[in-house]
Amino acid sequence: MKSYRLTKIIKSLPASIPFVSPEEHERDVGQQFLARIGANENCYGPSPKVLEAIINSSHDVWKYPDPTAHTLKKELAKFYNISDKNIIVGEGIDALLGYLVRLLIQVGDTVVTSNGSYPTFNYHVAGFGGKLLKCDYRDDKEDLRLLIDTAAQTKAKLVYFSNPNNPMGTWTRGEKILSLLDNLPNDCLLILDEAYAEFAPNEAKTQISVDDPRVIRFRTFSKAYGIAGARIGYGLASPDLIIEFDKIRNHFGNSLLSQVAAIAALEDQNYLSDVVKKTAVGREKLYETAKKNGLSAIPSATNFVAIDCGKDSSFAVQVMNGLLEANVFVRKPVVAPLDRTIRVSVGRDDELDIFDNVLPKVLKTLR
Amino acid sequence: MKSYRLTKIIKSLPASIPFVSPEEHERDVGQQFLARIGANENCYGPSPKVLEAIINSSHDVWKYPDPTAHTLKKELAKFYNISDKNIIVGEGIDALLGYLVRLLIQVGDTVVTSNGSYPTFNYHVAGFGGKLLKCDYRDDKEDLRLLIDTAAQTKAKLVYFSNPNNPMGTWTRGEKILSLLDNLPNDCLLILDEAYAEFAPNEAKTQISVDDPRVIRFRTFSKAYGIAGARIGYGLASPDLIIEFDKIRNHFGNSLLSQVAAIAALEDQNYLSDVVKKTAVGREKLYETAKKNGLSAIPSATNFVAIDCGKDSSFAVQVMNGLLEANVFVRKPVVAPLDRTIRVSVGRDDELDIFDNVLPKVLKTLR
Repeated sequence: MKSYRLTKIIKSLPASIPFVSPEEHERDVGQQFLARIGANENCYGPSPKVLEAIINSSHDVWKYPDPTAHTLKKELAKFYNISDKNIIVGEGIDALLGYLVRLLIQVGDTVVTSNGSYPTFNYHVAGFGGKLLKCDYRDDKEDLRLLIDTAAQTKAKLVYFSNPNNPMGTWTRGEKILSLLDNLPNDCLLILDEAYAEFAPNEAKTQISVDDPRVIRFRTFSKAYGIAGARIGYGLASPDLIIEFDKIRNHFGNSLLSQVAAIAALEDQNYLSDVVKKTAVGREKLYETAKKNGLSAIPSATNFVAIDCGKDSSFAVQVMNGLLEANVFVRKPVVAPLDRTIRVSVGRDDELDIFDNVLPKVLKTLR
Repeated sequence: MKSYRLTKIIKSLPASIPFVSPEEHERDVGQQFLARIGANENCYGPSPKVLEAIINSSHDVWKYPDPTAHTLKKELAKFYNISDKNIIVGEGIDALLGYLVRLLIQVGDTVVTSNGSYPTFNYHVAGFGGKLLKCDYRDDKEDLRLLIDTAAQTKAKLVYFSNPNNPMGTWTRGEKILSLLDNLPNDCLLILDEAYAEFAPNEAKTQISVDDPRVIRFRTFSKAYGIAGARIGYGLASPDLIIEFDKIRNHFGNSLLSQVAAIAALEDQNYLSDVVKKTAVGREKLYETAKKNGLSAIPSATNFVAIDCGKDSSFAVQVMNGLLEANVFVRKPVVAPLDRTIRVSVGRDDELDIFDNVLPKVLKTLR
């Protein structure tokens, strides 16, 4: 019965979904999670001013949203002291990664990333027929020197690098990134995914000019700003690259209430500072729980902690599954050597207490 | 300074934006519109239950949305008495059109549409290097027979057809669509864009099976359901086509509150009926205003009316500009012979009164 003609690339792709959502897991087992600490969401939620803004604007939802995200871009421009021409707003970093890959990658073009880094980026590269080269992590960090050298050797068009890193929580000093950038081939673009930047120490900040044509940076309102449900990410780059997105993006893709929520979130920097402080305390709790159980936590610059389970991948999978069975939602890296860890998000105190309580029980059944 | 390497297609594309938003116009002239009757939004807004649902769920906005839109699809499946495997939910019909084009069209593939129909579809076809053939309207309707014959002659992969039609408001009988479908080549897919279906008379309904592999239908919550700001559209098609979207779509693209809003909107069918009735009354008012001014309104099955200004395109542009200068937001078709009209959305009574008051003044200055 199938009669329509798919493209060659589409035929070659698996119908895979990057992540299974916690809701889907809950539906499968017929129970709610006791601790939702697996998707690196912000358990503290957004500023009360965000909720207020959503409620105040809810009666506007009959209108189409502003396709240029004018006000949000103006506020971001003010915040960063840059031009709004340096900013592209999209339906989460996920959408922006997809658009960027489409701008640069045609069948057979080379793209460089790390073995075990963000799978949704790989999904987009595969989706446009790109050839993905994966470099190994070094000391649980993405190895920017190796990534850039590999890009140079292979004439890659695009390199992906996250700082801080997901899924390990590690970070690279901004100075180091800046100095390595000089090795980047002139015609290669570096993606600097800074989804977790607001949580990171100052030394992770880079002094890369927003007009530097070698780099595009991505940030999001899904993590520290606490509105993952709104799906608002943004890219910072030179105006001539930013304007290319207008050739292909879904111009009316950013919902009206999501734009309103992001504007309100950005405005409440005191609340953001508070979230960052509370998250740091939460990380310490996770370190402590790991330590008490004889496991080592990898120091994190994010709102999650990768906990080294001390054995191989299959052991870490057993730990994760034990936690899931106890209705504690965590995830884990799937590629070696990262896969010896489980990845636990900072949750509310009650969630961290549940984790602290359940983890030793799970480990006991496995030892 | 530009150093990154764009693809060949991207280099060939204009950085065009399909529509200028009313907000952008307002910013340009420094004044708010008195009547916002240009974007075919639903001036009555959504059901109060939608606003209630948004407010009740606003505290959940820290969570990622369900990437499978599980609940919304279940409710749609129940509503249509079909399987949720027949349904794809996306960031407005715009996004779904983009995904569909990407699934089927590679450089040089032929796509058939009408001269003057939905520009965002053309934008996506151009964006993937498709070759667009445009058939003329007949009697202010998209000419489905001609579209299908053209597709057959040119071995097109995809045909676009909207029912009711935008921008003219005309409609085609469902029976006629069904019978013409037999002429569609077996390996060609028909897009049936039914964005305005809820407003249309029964005779516009088609009895096409949702499992028919020759057709994909698109519907939206932006029009009759009154939540254009939420950006939720959906496609109905055979499961094997629906699952292809999972290979490329932005899985986390539908915001959490948008999904909640759509579920609540679908549930309140009484409110929908009421909107449809009020819209019919509003259309009559627009017909009346046209008639009083010696212009002929084209009978509409939508929430807007194309008013034939009785002269050429440049006259209709002058009428539109006169209205815009009086802070009345309307749009107009740009392709002949549709371009002799202006397109006016059904607004609230006060907006329709303003239009009724301003139109004769504008015409007087032009005659």
